[in-house]
Amino acid sequence: MQPEQVQGAARLAEVRFAVAVAAGRQPGTVLLQNAQVVNVCTGEIVRTHVLLAGRLIAGVGEAFATAGAEQVVDLSGRWLVPGLIDGHVHLESALVTPAEYARAVLPRGVTAVVCDPHEIGNVAGLPGIQWLLQASAGLPMDVWVTVPSCVPATPLETAGAELGLAEMAALLDQPRVLGVAEIMNFPGVIAGDDRILARALLAERYGKVPDGHAPLLSGRALHAYLAAGIGSDHECTGTAEGLEKLRAGCFLMIREGSATRNLTALAPLITPRHTGRIGFVTDDRFPHDLLSAGGVDDLVRRAIALGVDPALAVQCATCNTARYFRLPRRGAVAPGYVADLAVLDDLAAFTVATVYKNGAPVATDGRLAVELPAAPPPTPAVTGTVRLPPLGPADLRLAAPAGEIRCLRLVPGQILTEQVWVQPRTEAGQVVADPERDLAKLVCVERHGRRGGVGVGLVTGLGLRAGAIASTVAHDHHNLMAAGTNDADLLAAARRLAELGGGFVAVAGGRVLAELPLPIAGLVTDQPLEQVRAALDRLEAAAGQLGVQIPAPFMALSFLGLAVIPELRLTDRGLVDVAAARLVPPGRLSAGG
Amino acid sequence: MQPEQVQGAARLAEVRFAVAVAAGRQPGTVLLQNAQVVNVCTGEIVRTHVLLAGRLIAGVGEAFATAGAEQVVDLSGRWLVPGLIDGHVHLESALVTPAEYARAVLPRGVTAVVCDPHEIGNVAGLPGIQWLLQASAGLPMDVWVTVPSCVPATPLETAGAELGLAEMAALLDQPRVLGVAEIMNFPGVIAGDDRILARALLAERYGKVPDGHAPLLSGRALHAYLAAGIGSDHECTGTAEGLEKLRAGCFLMIREGSATRNLTALAPLITPRHTGRIGFVTDDRFPHDLLSAGGVDDLVRRAIALGVDPALAVQCATCNTARYFRLPRRGAVAPGYVADLAVLDDLAAFTVATVYKNGAPVATDGRLAVELPAAPPPTPAVTGTVRLPPLGPADLRLAAPAGEIRCLRLVPGQILTEQVWVQPRTEAGQVVADPERDLAKLVCVERHGRRGGVGVGLVTGLGLRAGAIASTVAHDHHNLMAAGTNDADLLAAARRLAELGGGFVAVAGGRVLAELPLPIAGLVTDQPLEQVRAALDRLEAAAGQLGVQIPAPFMALSFLGLAVIPELRLTDRGLVDVAAARLVPPGRLSAGG
Repeated sequence: MQPEQVQGAARLAEVRFAVAVAAGRQPGTVLLQNAQVVNVCTGEIVRTHVLLAGRLIAGVGEAFATAGAEQVVDLSGRWLVPGLIDGHVHLESALVTPAEYARAVLPRGVTAVVCDPHEIGNVAGLPGIQWLLQASAGLPMDVWVTVPSCVPATPLETAGAELGLAEMAALLDQPRVLGVAEIMNFPGVIAGDDRILARALLAERYGKVPDGHAPLLSGRALHAYLAAGIGSDHECTGTAEGLEKLRAGCFLMIREGSATRNLTALAPLITPRHTGRIGFVTDDRFPHDLLSAGGVDDLVRRAIALGVDPALAVQCATCNTARYFRLPRRGAVAPGYVADLAVLDDLAAFTVATVYKNGAPVATDGRLAVELPAAPPPTPAVTGTVRLPPLGPADLRLAAPAGEIRCLRLVPGQILTEQVWVQPRTEAGQVVADPERDLAKLVCVERHGRRGGVGVGLVTGLGLRAGAIASTVAHDHHNLMAAGTNDADLLAAARRLAELGGGFVAVAGGRVLAELPLPIAGLVTDQPLEQVRAALDRLEAAAGQLGVQIPAPFMALSFLGLAVIPELRLTDRGLVDVAAARLVPPGRLSAGG
Repeated sequence: MQPEQVQGAARLAEVRFAVAVAAGRQPGTVLLQNAQVVNVCTGEIVRTHVLLAGRLIAGVGEAFATAGAEQVVDLSGRWLVPGLIDGHVHLESALVTPAEYARAVLPRGVTAVVCDPHEIGNVAGLPGIQWLLQASAGLPMDVWVTVPSCVPATPLETAGAELGLAEMAALLDQPRVLGVAEIMNFPGVIAGDDRILARALLAERYGKVPDGHAPLLSGRALHAYLAAGIGSDHECTGTAEGLEKLRAGCFLMIREGSATRNLTALAPLITPRHTGRIGFVTDDRFPHDLLSAGGVDDLVRRAIALGVDPALAVQCATCNTARYFRLPRRGAVAPGYVADLAVLDDLAAFTVATVYKNGAPVATDGRLAVELPAAPPPTPAVTGTVRLPPLGPADLRLAAPAGEIRCLRLVPGQILTEQVWVQPRTEAGQVVADPERDLAKLVCVERHGRRGGVGVGLVTGLGLRAGAIASTVAHDHHNLMAAGTNDADLLAAARRLAELGGGFVAVAGGRVLAELPLPIAGLVTDQPLEQVRAALDRLEAAAGQLGVQIPAPFMALSFLGLAVIPELRLTDRGLVDVAAARLVPPGRLSAGG
């Protein structure tokens, strides 16, 4: 199925109407007079008039200055840009439903996102992604989907589901699905693993695109990766890397997320020569950033502040991404295009006055102007997903090996971790936390009701001096991840998250200090984003009382299980040496050896 | 079906091989060292190395300088460009089969064409287009197809077939079909005629593009036309018109054909700001031009001579067109792309040394280096297509009206005609030719065995002083068109073309002076292009003996029935006032009035 929401007789009717309006046989629905239109097709800013006909733009130009319309709005020189398109985002990272996400970014001019439901896919598989499709249907923001390609991400972890070729194909056949999402298993691609290559090629079969994920790949490795037909990358961090990828035909998605920020480094690549092949993406935006800085609008604003030509910056967040994803008639202020538009009070500051979606105003002065459709209730696939094994103190034991033990070290401000060797504190032959030396116990409990395994290790860098913090958001497998100074609080935290059906919690002395329930797949709440932010503030304050001083400690915790980013990680199956792509024992020698 | 020739297990195998070659696990097939690669993705020219793996490009860059390969070719600084793609061409205008067309342009670096089989569709309908698909399958040049949208072109003529929505849909479902061809009935689109709009929308349903044809449209009319979702135009003649179309989101196909030449006027639009939205097309190239100047390579050469940046000129004939038509992995020298390449001795002169198609050399120093597959025999649908009604002198009569009569006037060098009023010479109440005043009789005989009608009128501007010339190529209906100084020679010419199954003929005193049989649909021969040129030379010499001094007189004759280009035309149904889109009587008053 091709990506078009309106088909058949309804499509003929809307086109007939738009043609009649453009030709002057019928009045339009809205006439936007005296707009400074950012024309992304030519890179110009042209003061002119735009006539809408229902969902579509009927015409743009001087010829429409006094065209008939039900409503005439004189923009008096305000700017008009196409609605922005975020080319790659994990909506789950905002911890809210697609509707809540839309409520946050629509007033900022974001009228479409291409989301990769990798997180909910890892927890709830195909039914989880189907819930996301349902929960995002009918919103006044287009939620396009790319199919997660790596569920589970590695064989070193237990995810809640597997997405095989059959499940991926079922999704690719849907009209709102634009391609296969970032193929993170780049070693598998480069090694020519048929099972991985088949996932890239599946997109082709449906006339859709396979997205890439090629951090620091260069030379032969980069070309081997792209030779598989993969079309994009959003992991680029420098201009030399970016230019090499552009030269290699790659669509360069410049990312500015909460965890990883690449815009400043890559902005020099945004010139007319390259611009058509560059798109803006947010990847992951946490609630605070989303509320304070925004979504992909933040990249446009920052790019302009970095000196990028405003029309080129807007191109990167509109027509370029639409063209890459073969989205027809989106991302430009042009006849026949879907009337997704943002009126700006100021272009450079990207201050949005009014947003039109499908030709109708949906947000004004930073607030939604329409009711969002009632969210469908969470389906069984995405509720009750925290299914812990029976847990007792024995399950959290870590027998002390002779000598030093591996310990994860958080690197401030990065999702990288380092492996450090420490001499652990022990009690009765068991490794225990040592808050004096900032050594907390880290556990990862399989929570999908499958293998029931528990990984145990040490982490430093959190600053935890008492109690425990825990999360069921834990990339990419989303098992239960907890760090604590004592087993009793670790167990209490786990029990509380099981009761909540997932979320974040801070515990001390067996008492819950703060919590955020995330009952949908253990990843997302149906509560408003502002409430999520308030709960996170309370959680961070509680963590602070426990000694944690790093910013966004629950996000940091959620990345400690990410077995695809160096250096040392902990999953339900144990410690992972990422570079070697294998499980490793805690010590240099075996326990008691 | 998506446009990819290699699918399923074969696709997996070729990708696996390309990845292995790029990664260095297997030797490549060809290593092209020390090439000056025109990188159309970045607009740069980079001296580097290109490694091929069968049909695909495995890698590009310094890392491949000494990569293993079955064959190593040191290009010693010669240029390397992607194989050129002609975005819109009526192959039938070359009067030869697709294989012969390929033989002419492949050595010039043209590795793909997007053809609009409008002519054979008008004669032989869906089976005719299916013959063309068969006759172009397996060539070492990709022949992509757009489905003719206007067969017949107008209700004022009798074509050999109709292409309705069902026939169009059957074609759109085929993988080599990229879209719906130029929707010439722009008045129908602008008027909102559902039957015409449905043809544009049909392309969408298959995820393909509807091409446009919007000569001189501007303002509300242009926007009404594009509001129907139409994506391109190739009729643009000036920069102001071109800029308006680019601003309106239109993909601008710059045309340089035999009959109409727009490159010089539009070259100033080819700047980095616009280039991604511009493609080069030849539309119609007659045999002489094809042999002397070439195909779409001629546009690249001329554009560079006009001062266009060479890399941008190459973009317009490669990746831009591929992207517009959503052709995956074509039109760039990049990993994973199909290895369609041209090695140039000189970039500015665009002198082609070697051409690679699907990774294999297919032409060297201006000559094909491979055997073309044997053409399938013409099918019954495309043979015996000249089915004239019984014709006698009575059928060519034109009763003299009172006073003046309308006469078509050829405009030298254009396909426009003018209407002039002349006082005709008459004999026994019938209008006859008057060579002294350059008034020839013009007849159009329905030749598809359908209505059997004959249109009769006068033409001036040919210079015919004796005999007759005739053609079964007659845009768009391709009835038999003949101009003569006497009915006997007109009848003799028609009889001869019926015997030949179509073609061109020059007759005087009842004797054939020269002829070119075009037995396939009355449009095309299976003979070599050089023979066609020689026959055309003989025909033009014969026409010259009869007084015709204009260049390419048979081409001129073939446009006298084109009822969609102003001002006056003749079809089998009579004289057509194009602006009024209706049949008109020869005189101001009725015959004998």
